[in-house]
Amino acid sequence: MKKSIQIGLLGLGTVGTGVARMLMENMEILVARVGVPLKLKYIADIDLERDRGLQLDEFLLTSNAFEVVDDPEVDIVVEMIGGEGIARTLILKALENGKQVVTANKALLAKHGNQLFKNAMDNGADLAYEASVGGCMPIIKTLRESLVGNRIQSMTGILNGTCNYILSKITDEGIEFDAALAKAKANGYAEADPTLDVEGFDTAHKLAILTSLGYGMEINFDDIYIEGISKITPLDIAFAGQFGYRIKLLAITKAGDNTVEARVHPAMIPFDNLLSNVNSTLNAITVTADAVGDILLYGHGAGMMPTASAVIGDIVDIARNLLMNANGRVPLMSYQMDHVKQVPVTPIRDITTHYYFRFFAQDKPGVLSTISGVLGQHGISIKSVNQKGRKTEGSVPVVMLSHLAKEEDVQNALAEIRVLDVVSRAPMLIRIEDDNYEE
Amino acid sequence: MKKSIQIGLLGLGTVGTGVARMLMENMEILVARVGVPLKLKYIADIDLERDRGLQLDEFLLTSNAFEVVDDPEVDIVVEMIGGEGIARTLILKALENGKQVVTANKALLAKHGNQLFKNAMDNGADLAYEASVGGCMPIIKTLRESLVGNRIQSMTGILNGTCNYILSKITDEGIEFDAALAKAKANGYAEADPTLDVEGFDTAHKLAILTSLGYGMEINFDDIYIEGISKITPLDIAFAGQFGYRIKLLAITKAGDNTVEARVHPAMIPFDNLLSNVNSTLNAITVTADAVGDILLYGHGAGMMPTASAVIGDIVDIARNLLMNANGRVPLMSYQMDHVKQVPVTPIRDITTHYYFRFFAQDKPGVLSTISGVLGQHGISIKSVNQKGRKTEGSVPVVMLSHLAKEEDVQNALAEIRVLDVVSRAPMLIRIEDDNYEE
Repeated sequence: MKKSIQIGLLGLGTVGTGVARMLMENMEILVARVGVPLKLKYIADIDLERDRGLQLDEFLLTSNAFEVVDDPEVDIVVEMIGGEGIARTLILKALENGKQVVTANKALLAKHGNQLFKNAMDNGADLAYEASVGGCMPIIKTLRESLVGNRIQSMTGILNGTCNYILSKITDEGIEFDAALAKAKANGYAEADPTLDVEGFDTAHKLAILTSLGYGMEINFDDIYIEGISKITPLDIAFAGQFGYRIKLLAITKAGDNTVEARVHPAMIPFDNLLSNVNSTLNAITVTADAVGDILLYGHGAGMMPTASAVIGDIVDIARNLLMNANGRVPLMSYQMDHVKQVPVTPIRDITTHYYFRFFAQDKPGVLSTISGVLGQHGISIKSVNQKGRKTEGSVPVVMLSHLAKEEDVQNALAEIRVLDVVSRAPMLIRIEDDNYEE
Repeated sequence: MKKSIQIGLLGLGTVGTGVARMLMENMEILVARVGVPLKLKYIADIDLERDRGLQLDEFLLTSNAFEVVDDPEVDIVVEMIGGEGIARTLILKALENGKQVVTANKALLAKHGNQLFKNAMDNGADLAYEASVGGCMPIIKTLRESLVGNRIQSMTGILNGTCNYILSKITDEGIEFDAALAKAKANGYAEADPTLDVEGFDTAHKLAILTSLGYGMEINFDDIYIEGISKITPLDIAFAGQFGYRIKLLAITKAGDNTVEARVHPAMIPFDNLLSNVNSTLNAITVTADAVGDILLYGHGAGMMPTASAVIGDIVDIARNLLMNANGRVPLMSYQMDHVKQVPVTPIRDITTHYYFRFFAQDKPGVLSTISGVLGQHGISIKSVNQKGRKTEGSVPVVMLSHLAKEEDVQNALAEIRVLDVVSRAPMLIRIEDDNYEE
């Protein structure tokens, strides 16, 4: 049996630093759990001068990551570089060299996961990725190992801390999106360019991984519908509250007969849904499956140490496999490769759900019937209307909640309403996710 | 490699029936995930006549469970009998015969876990027990595999659906404990003799398992402090609400320097603690650890199919080990046996926390100062007093919230107050668990 496990760490950014720190500070409990030391042999980064508050002189430092993946002594390569370029090349090279790989690279897995998983399987290697979705929450392990006897029916997640922080700020303080984003930046919860987070792409990367894994299918990332939170206003959040809802950016996937829904957009969820109480930068995910009903995981979805915790969990899993010569023990997508299916994603225009509409309309007789008339012509019936609110530039906000409607009909109706004389500004549409919605 | 995994199921009660059903109905996805069929070869039960809505004729049925554990073809024995008698004998025999074992038997593990785990390790066998705590929630796997790089600091759980249902009913409907218990029985959520649940023993069994696993220690079950919910009144729940708290039966464990706290009792928790929103028969557990901060799992903690889901997860884990010849891959208590520690449990008298006291006192001048005087003599200072409320038999309820106090002082003070002339009925004490309590 091996006397130690040798680790090569690629990338000393936030999470990479957390991984190095945890391997140093908590080695005693890791040895007690694994039985042999996990030795951090190499650290590779293009900038090794920057101070990370770590004593690095006991490790081999290199700016050449290929040196690490080519070293025959390295058992596990931990890819913490990110992005779809050099990270992908290094992972492929590591697999080719017979190494086990841990990554947190959701963008890479969302777009090239199918191929990377095949490469790993062909090499009999483990490619672990718990940290790619939900930070410290063990959602990958739960899907791959715990819920294996279940048919997964749907998953709903709050998977981006930046967006959840911003929406929480708008909700709690009644401020506009831009002001909330500024606060997120000031607190280090948003990047200088926040597009990837606030426009929903990061959430979609994670949703792609969950959808593949939950249903044992390959997914084309471009088939996922993605809508961010930058249009959400305090007015809509206040209206949502009046109807008993909170607005969250959700990753949603639902299994149909021979299709799946996979979409990312702001949605209204009722107060009694635990997800509506997940605030600030925290993440959570609900999995609905035939045997368990609903199960929810909650925790920090990002940050140095929570994400490092997931990486360390993966390292230990792989170390335990290495000590037993059992790599490849759990199929990477939970399903055996020859059982992985091709399932089409339902285009957004074909989904049916409940809708919240907010218009700015002239405050005069007949306007309401004009708007609801257009909706009716497209087969959309209205459950309730709320017209109270402040007058702004001669218009008042009019809010409507629909009965079950088809997205395509909704979009066609809104296109007509948008150009009505009595309506100022573009209409707002927010989808409602409420299992107990009264028709 | 094995062409199939042979399973022997002992006990066809609620969960056993769920396991058999899931193996029949979801075999297709199990094969897709494991790669080979999981064959249910035997079912053993003392009453095989009762209708469980299952087609059993394709299996070997026996009323002699020893036939199953002695059959050389059986790979995995699934013990769903429960109790500390025959179940223990059968598990030991199965391990001795070189079989892998799955159990959901929390009472057995809480009291004899140390010995059973040693037997399994000596035989190089897996002894899996995910279903023993929290039903479908993967808390055992999360502690044994996902949070391995963390130092666990504390765990707080709602682990008994019967108690949570009863407390939810008292809270929502303002009814007394006995009426709520009757409703629980009528709905099949409480047994004819509910003692094990409502007096906290079932929760304590689960806490014993979590404490051992979280800190890698052996625990003496009798060292756990246990207090049930039968004394909780709608009046106390209403007062709790006024202070921003809900009352839940909690399993609490906290790591000290060289001791741990392990206690089960009703406690007040603030509204913004997610656990306070876990209602009806649902369970949840929060784990606090150095790297992840707080992580929470939520789901059905009991019931046929949710519990069977956890058992099936264990069966698949073991099957994946069997196919790789990797049994014993994860140490049963997460820590290697030679690292398992002896850690004393702090006696309840030595804990310090915040307290809610409710007295029935005569409504006349000086009573309040008499009571708070006794508390003060024992070093307990009061943060707030609430005297409003209905007069009952000449007395009014007086409620006090304490600053941080030691349990021993509290008990001594209450013993003195109990015999005061101005106080009728025994005083009520409920501990408060609130990290943001304002001193």
